[in-house]
Amino acid sequence: MRTGPKQVLILGGGFAGVYTARCLEKLLRSEEASITLINRENYWVYQPMVPEVISGSIGLTNVVSPIRRLCPRTNLIMREVEDIDLKRQIVTISPGFRPRQLELKYDHLVIALGNITNFHGMPGMIENAMPFRTLADAIALRNHLIHALEEADVEEDPELRRRLLTFVVGGGGFSGVEVMAELNDFVRSVKRNYLRLRHEPHRCVIVQAGERILPEMSEPLAMFAQRILRKRGIDIILNDRLKAATSERAILQSGTEIPCKTLISTVPSALPQVVQKLDCAKERSKLLVNAHLELKDYEGKVWALGDCACITTAAGTMVPPTAQHATREAITAAINIAAAVRGGNQAEFGFEGLGTLGSLGHGAAVAQIGSVTVSGLLAWLLWRGVYLMKMPSLNRKIRIAADWLLHLLFPPELAQTKVAVESGIRNQHFEPGDIVFQEGDLGDSVYVIEEGECQALRERKGQRELLATLGHGEYFGEMAVLSDRTRNATIRACTAMNVLVIPKADFDKLRHSVPLFGHVFSELAQRRAEAGPPHSSADPGMPAGGSGGNSSHAVLFRR
Amino acid sequence: MRTGPKQVLILGGGFAGVYTARCLEKLLRSEEASITLINRENYWVYQPMVPEVISGSIGLTNVVSPIRRLCPRTNLIMREVEDIDLKRQIVTISPGFRPRQLELKYDHLVIALGNITNFHGMPGMIENAMPFRTLADAIALRNHLIHALEEADVEEDPELRRRLLTFVVGGGGFSGVEVMAELNDFVRSVKRNYLRLRHEPHRCVIVQAGERILPEMSEPLAMFAQRILRKRGIDIILNDRLKAATSERAILQSGTEIPCKTLISTVPSALPQVVQKLDCAKERSKLLVNAHLELKDYEGKVWALGDCACITTAAGTMVPPTAQHATREAITAAINIAAAVRGGNQAEFGFEGLGTLGSLGHGAAVAQIGSVTVSGLLAWLLWRGVYLMKMPSLNRKIRIAADWLLHLLFPPELAQTKVAVESGIRNQHFEPGDIVFQEGDLGDSVYVIEEGECQALRERKGQRELLATLGHGEYFGEMAVLSDRTRNATIRACTAMNVLVIPKADFDKLRHSVPLFGHVFSELAQRRAEAGPPHSSADPGMPAGGSGGNSSHAVLFRR
Repeated sequence: MRTGPKQVLILGGGFAGVYTARCLEKLLRSEEASITLINRENYWVYQPMVPEVISGSIGLTNVVSPIRRLCPRTNLIMREVEDIDLKRQIVTISPGFRPRQLELKYDHLVIALGNITNFHGMPGMIENAMPFRTLADAIALRNHLIHALEEADVEEDPELRRRLLTFVVGGGGFSGVEVMAELNDFVRSVKRNYLRLRHEPHRCVIVQAGERILPEMSEPLAMFAQRILRKRGIDIILNDRLKAATSERAILQSGTEIPCKTLISTVPSALPQVVQKLDCAKERSKLLVNAHLELKDYEGKVWALGDCACITTAAGTMVPPTAQHATREAITAAINIAAAVRGGNQAEFGFEGLGTLGSLGHGAAVAQIGSVTVSGLLAWLLWRGVYLMKMPSLNRKIRIAADWLLHLLFPPELAQTKVAVESGIRNQHFEPGDIVFQEGDLGDSVYVIEEGECQALRERKGQRELLATLGHGEYFGEMAVLSDRTRNATIRACTAMNVLVIPKADFDKLRHSVPLFGHVFSELAQRRAEAGPPHSSADPGMPAGGSGGNSSHAVLFRR
Repeated sequence: MRTGPKQVLILGGGFAGVYTARCLEKLLRSEEASITLINRENYWVYQPMVPEVISGSIGLTNVVSPIRRLCPRTNLIMREVEDIDLKRQIVTISPGFRPRQLELKYDHLVIALGNITNFHGMPGMIENAMPFRTLADAIALRNHLIHALEEADVEEDPELRRRLLTFVVGGGGFSGVEVMAELNDFVRSVKRNYLRLRHEPHRCVIVQAGERILPEMSEPLAMFAQRILRKRGIDIILNDRLKAATSERAILQSGTEIPCKTLISTVPSALPQVVQKLDCAKERSKLLVNAHLELKDYEGKVWALGDCACITTAAGTMVPPTAQHATREAITAAINIAAAVRGGNQAEFGFEGLGTLGSLGHGAAVAQIGSVTVSGLLAWLLWRGVYLMKMPSLNRKIRIAADWLLHLLFPPELAQTKVAVESGIRNQHFEPGDIVFQEGDLGDSVYVIEEGECQALRERKGQRELLATLGHGEYFGEMAVLSDRTRNATIRACTAMNVLVIPKADFDKLRHSVPLFGHVFSELAQRRAEAGPPHSSADPGMPAGGSGGNSSHAVLFRR
């Protein structure tokens, strides 16, 4: 048997994970336990304030706090969790600079990996809907918004300009409402710096599946919130939900389509894959734990808490996934781990919640504390006061207070903080009728059809001429890329279509280094050029899976 | 002839470009001229303070200022300049959301596109040396430093840990010195938050081609700076320069090799390609202008200023590429543009400089104003005072002052602000003896050799066995990626070698969608598996250019 300190391993650095570590540092001495925390980032995110990153009313790094400073005695490992072996008590983590996985043996394990956004079964959402969970999401959204405004300012086409100025949020819970409120405040405020957008309207839409927004709150408060949001110019669509998306529009269950270039989704959520594949009891697709927050069959060994755990209080209430609950769960788990390490009494989780608070943008909020409800400016001041107080570091408290003060005096930040140009091989989704590219566009990518069909069209004497119909496994767009010219045809999806997009830079590298790869496309381009238009695909249906032959050998354009 | 306001087009949003726009807004009425500025970013960067982003002593967005607010009457277009046609007076800019280029006609043009870092002829530098020019560079460096510290904290191998804790800067001018001073301050200060690094030494090295650092200053001041930096633990290597780099080390002209994972280069610089290809008079590979800052043969039409222009004052001094000169050049150019638009006197550039200031990290700097020199804390306070005063917005002045105050009270930021995971198809360089991957590593990428040779080795009974020698056009690494296993051999470069790295995610997408691409590798893997080790390449030399046959058909492993 191993002697020395027990190995306590905490997976996840959210409220649940970090507060467990902090509590354990107080309860156990270094000789009793060695605490290790694994998190993708080296910081803990103060979730309630993340929406404020959009408007920059709080400095980007002020909504996060370095885990090393919050938990000075905890070993932090900044990696991903790849596998949890409950039987062998081993956790495998992803490689760092060297391509080697690391295996960690534990005596006691805390699973607090939260949940993720899951767009399964919603075509085009992965490619086009932006999630809003992490700091990275918030920064990416902020940069995207600024990019959309910059482009709208240059754009001459009124239709595209409207699309650039339409912002859609899926989900009308706290998260969706707070994001939209901040986004609306931000766009409204910075628009006046754009010479051509000053008097242009913008459109903000919340899509909510239920009868009303904010299902977490009582009806009168939610109705108040709806009124405020609508007064501030936000459209609220009820009893509907996102079904699909393309880069040009959001498509709702009801059939409504909203042309937009910005789509944010705060729903739905699912367990991270590494938790999902665990062979243990689950309920409502979360890990089922007892009142001590222990995983069934692994009592005294494994605890699960936070958003990935299904917890019921002693009184029988389902525990909601909020910060106030997660921090209390952390205390319960820490007490029980300490008890497992050196004996003592176990604790049961019985916290019933203090109330709920939701911001509706600058100067307005809703709050519900027990049976008392507060709304408007007072609730907003309460919101700021409560969350500032709860921020666990004097440094941050002062910085946030200073940021808020400056935000009252000066207009919001407008600088984009994009670091890397997004590019690389990626998937994209098109709905019937969507234009993939237009005749005359620059040849910036090559496309491979993974699913669905499209048509190649050419404008002649004001009429659209059908050149070919392309299907699964076929390529298009290679001609303009290979010859460095503009597109000689328009491609329009005729069914829902999924494609692989290979940007010119990657395409050129690949065909230079893997000659056979280049041949596939250059031969096709040559044949298409020789054959000339118009013609319908000789071989539109391809064997599924793509491992068989491919249609690059089909003559695609014939007179 | 066109009537209405003249079209003034400014290319570049640095000191030169932005100050020209600001000055023109004062000199010309809207009816006289319409001012358009084109810049890759929507913000102007306050270069002197960019190094402070590393330590986070100034908030990330406080070293930049939105151009829209600095120049409220100027049309900003956030795009890249792709082509300048001096004859036809047309500038072409890159596409935005839509793949269409935009052409802009101008009456008067200001070229202020600065310069870029040019690693031509220095193998491996593009892939491994980080430039330090833009805000994006500074943020990327900051994130990289934090990543290196996080990895060093986990790493068990003392050799790799040393490499992770070694930081090399190429170039000992103002820029190199200020970056290294900030970097050293930051690492020293945050190391104490890492349980395992607290007592581990780190190494900082400046490599300078000349006899001393800071050639911009007088010798006594430079010697003072050298003493201060050395006292703070920074190695200074003189009379040497960077020659090549791999992901594991920096290689100097003298043959010295410095194992390191962080390499920053502040030299050498060259004109941006779009300026380089201009058909006009150049000197010292910059655009040659007269005393009115006009381009030869395009007087009254085109002005060039800032770092991309070669300017001589009336007194015959070469104008150095600094902010104080750029802002004065902007005034001269603006006066001359106004004169061209509505007549009036032209101005000549005659500014001789006010002095030089360089920071050596917290609490120390060097300053030279005329014949007066100041060094140490006093110079540092002067540095801060001067640059704070020169920041052109009250908002920023207050924010920076607040940041500095808080930085004195609290430790520096430690949160990584990485948004996107860097990945994608990329090039990499290896020097002879370098290990590409080790037997037992995870199969995370496939490699294509573009130049050079390497050996496949296997460890058997403590001895390294040669399996094969691979050369130009050959592939390796596909076996572990295809079978999702670990590497079954070690690959070591035997000459300088350039490869294309295809990460597993991209590789899988490509072989799924382009079956022929997958076949190339799966056939090769099958043949290699069947043939078994060991064996030498049957076809190591491939025709150059890669357009001919390729060696995927060669049997690579034979007993």
